[in-house]
Amino acid sequence: MPKQIRLNAFDMNCVGHIQHGMWTHPRDRAMDYTSLAYWQHLARTAERGLFDGIFLADIVGVYDVYKNGPETAIAGGVQIPVNDPMLLVPAMAAVTTHVGFGVTSNLTYEPPYLFARRASTLDHLTGGRFGWNIVTGYLDSAARGMGLPVQHDHDTRYELAEEYMQVVYKLWEGSWEDDAVRRDRAGGVYADPAKVHRVQHEGTHYRLDAIHLSEPSPQRTPVLYQAGSSARGREFAATHAECVFINGMDEANIRETVTDLRRRTAARGRDPRDLLVFLSRTTVVGRTAKEAREKYEEYHRHANVEAALAHFSSSSGIDFSRYEMDEPFRYEKTNAMNSAVDAITRQASTPWTKRRLIEQMGLGSRNAPIVGSGDEVAEALIRLVDETDIDGYNLSRTVSPESLEDFVALVVPALQERGAFKHGYEDGPLRQKLFGAPRLPASHPAAGYRPVTAVQRTAAE
Amino acid sequence: MPKQIRLNAFDMNCVGHIQHGMWTHPRDRAMDYTSLAYWQHLARTAERGLFDGIFLADIVGVYDVYKNGPETAIAGGVQIPVNDPMLLVPAMAAVTTHVGFGVTSNLTYEPPYLFARRASTLDHLTGGRFGWNIVTGYLDSAARGMGLPVQHDHDTRYELAEEYMQVVYKLWEGSWEDDAVRRDRAGGVYADPAKVHRVQHEGTHYRLDAIHLSEPSPQRTPVLYQAGSSARGREFAATHAECVFINGMDEANIRETVTDLRRRTAARGRDPRDLLVFLSRTTVVGRTAKEAREKYEEYHRHANVEAALAHFSSSSGIDFSRYEMDEPFRYEKTNAMNSAVDAITRQASTPWTKRRLIEQMGLGSRNAPIVGSGDEVAEALIRLVDETDIDGYNLSRTVSPESLEDFVALVVPALQERGAFKHGYEDGPLRQKLFGAPRLPASHPAAGYRPVTAVQRTAAE
Repeated sequence: MPKQIRLNAFDMNCVGHIQHGMWTHPRDRAMDYTSLAYWQHLARTAERGLFDGIFLADIVGVYDVYKNGPETAIAGGVQIPVNDPMLLVPAMAAVTTHVGFGVTSNLTYEPPYLFARRASTLDHLTGGRFGWNIVTGYLDSAARGMGLPVQHDHDTRYELAEEYMQVVYKLWEGSWEDDAVRRDRAGGVYADPAKVHRVQHEGTHYRLDAIHLSEPSPQRTPVLYQAGSSARGREFAATHAECVFINGMDEANIRETVTDLRRRTAARGRDPRDLLVFLSRTTVVGRTAKEAREKYEEYHRHANVEAALAHFSSSSGIDFSRYEMDEPFRYEKTNAMNSAVDAITRQASTPWTKRRLIEQMGLGSRNAPIVGSGDEVAEALIRLVDETDIDGYNLSRTVSPESLEDFVALVVPALQERGAFKHGYEDGPLRQKLFGAPRLPASHPAAGYRPVTAVQRTAAE
Repeated sequence: MPKQIRLNAFDMNCVGHIQHGMWTHPRDRAMDYTSLAYWQHLARTAERGLFDGIFLADIVGVYDVYKNGPETAIAGGVQIPVNDPMLLVPAMAAVTTHVGFGVTSNLTYEPPYLFARRASTLDHLTGGRFGWNIVTGYLDSAARGMGLPVQHDHDTRYELAEEYMQVVYKLWEGSWEDDAVRRDRAGGVYADPAKVHRVQHEGTHYRLDAIHLSEPSPQRTPVLYQAGSSARGREFAATHAECVFINGMDEANIRETVTDLRRRTAARGRDPRDLLVFLSRTTVVGRTAKEAREKYEEYHRHANVEAALAHFSSSSGIDFSRYEMDEPFRYEKTNAMNSAVDAITRQASTPWTKRRLIEQMGLGSRNAPIVGSGDEVAEALIRLVDETDIDGYNLSRTVSPESLEDFVALVVPALQERGAFKHGYEDGPLRQKLFGAPRLPASHPAAGYRPVTAVQRTAAE
């Protein structure tokens, strides 16, 4: 039986997310991103398609590397304006039962005491369907928004992230014992104070002495997502993450990344299958191959190449406006650079140029979509899973919500026919659906922060 | 014609808010506070009753002055556990059209760049129904949660708050011009970069150089609520607030407070009617006076006096557990003390003691409710408005949601019959409903941060 493919709808609380220019298509509704109805429709559609999750990206800051200013991003709606993603979750959760929500939040800018409460609140309100995509921030423009002169360097950010995780694990896992909440009306006792513990943390970057403000939520620690692809980022993922997002077009590269991630996870004493790897992809689907191709051509007329370059300039730290079409890219690693350029250049036998980048582009992003009938797309997705050992896909939108509706109508049944996709949801919280249990396993570092209960103490004596 | 009374349903994302112990009543549903359906029902009920807003309190920290520890608060569910209030708004907004949402957020702990985006996001998603209750924080336990050794002192907090307001006004009012967003599909221009301005702020407490992440929302600056009652707090309210919440049982005191607030507002060059004053009250209503009295007695059996003392100990900074029943309270002002004690002791001819405090208590809070038939309660509310010049009430819950349902069914029609309450909502955003226009008037300090547009520049030349 083929591997069961996991699916996330990848989106963002803004007009232009990954495929730039698609909002100019007459059928695109992304300009309704400020309306709750738009997001509720999306959530219902994803749940109808049995998607595991809706994954919401975020960026704090503006893309201003290209042409040394934010003008191209602002004109093209390239992730600016961008609203807070967390606030979409309660409205989407209210009209769904099963679909999960993975939300990006940048720990560099969120005090852990308050962030831990936000996450617990969402885990409560969604009935245990909340996930957190751990991001440490990479835009200088964001640092200036926060009143810092420049970003922390890459390694400092991960050092800070490691300590941050300790603090939030203590709050989520260690402050309230499982049976602390009594809800005893007759006795007038809501919670047993002896089972609610102060978290005391005196670290290099964080200091805290408080009880967690929220009582235990269904999952306690939300499902942890991460997308770091540098060596340091992969080590972080192997330590903490349950779901990892990766980019890449080259199958050998993808396979190597997955193998490396699973190896690192095992080296941390975790089951390598406790890490699900999601590959970023987009699709254009028609009832026939011809219809799909025509749809692609139609969409393509709305693609905004310059907007895509502006986006990728900030991801890579390279101002592509400074290059001639056939001039090979030169770059050195900077604070602002993530590994986006590494991914495309690592195994490049011919040098990367703007012409090559643009030729590779699909619908206003740096990667081309999979185009075909439902059967063709399903087979391509299954083949890529077989070849690379990924667990599923983060499917980004093109013309929205049409692209998700098309996928649900045409690809999901084709995946199901091939035995590669579930026919219904499992019960329980998101983590239970993904890994079979609502709480993190004992092999995860968060488990080390759970309180030693009186029962356990007695048993150990 | 009598003055039109404004009404907010006062609530909090926790089990026990103001009237402590009510959650132990068999019909109370406040233990469902982690469920979206509970809050959506509440929002629908408030809108059926034509309430102007749902006002959500918040506290970051735990009440630990009483008996020098948090045990009484934890056992009694005294605003602990307490979940994030902002995350309730999208779900409540999704099932309502008119009712506003005033949410408490403590500026001391929220970076202005991200907070401004959260507020704009909520103003977008609610269609302009968002209000912010500006709080500067007063619990030492919260400071420890944030990694600070003690709270800033009272005056430093207001100094910081003044600067914070400048920063968020610049972001909300000054970054995007009214016509910056073009949504031009044919031209491929989402927004005009020339009309999106960098906010540059170099102050004592905050530094920022960024464009606002969100495009202009219906109200831009959310409706501003505030509750400070010290002289410094009133000055802040007179400068910034559009809605002020006050406490107090003594009519002369209330009237004096209202007069003082309006005088200070006028002194700031604002129309004193641009400040609405809401008095905190609770009611117990029956179809008859007898039924109301019986309901009160029934509720009263569930009141938790010790929980109320624990709450008031943290509000006042006085550990009431250290006093004998008839021993007069002694206190000196501390960082942690707000003016709660001032309010009860200011005109006290006889000294305040624990006995007197408890005798004055109603349903587990320091103030007794108004008890009566719908007609009686309506008349009491109208009379208090006439006598004190307040504009309306912040009605806190007793047994929930029964107390709001009772009020809507029995008091609202009685207020309407007397011409003291509207029969339908006005159209438009919350500020339009309250003050007749969606944006802040030119007399408000936020207006000073609006960009000078090209048209205005030309006109001025």
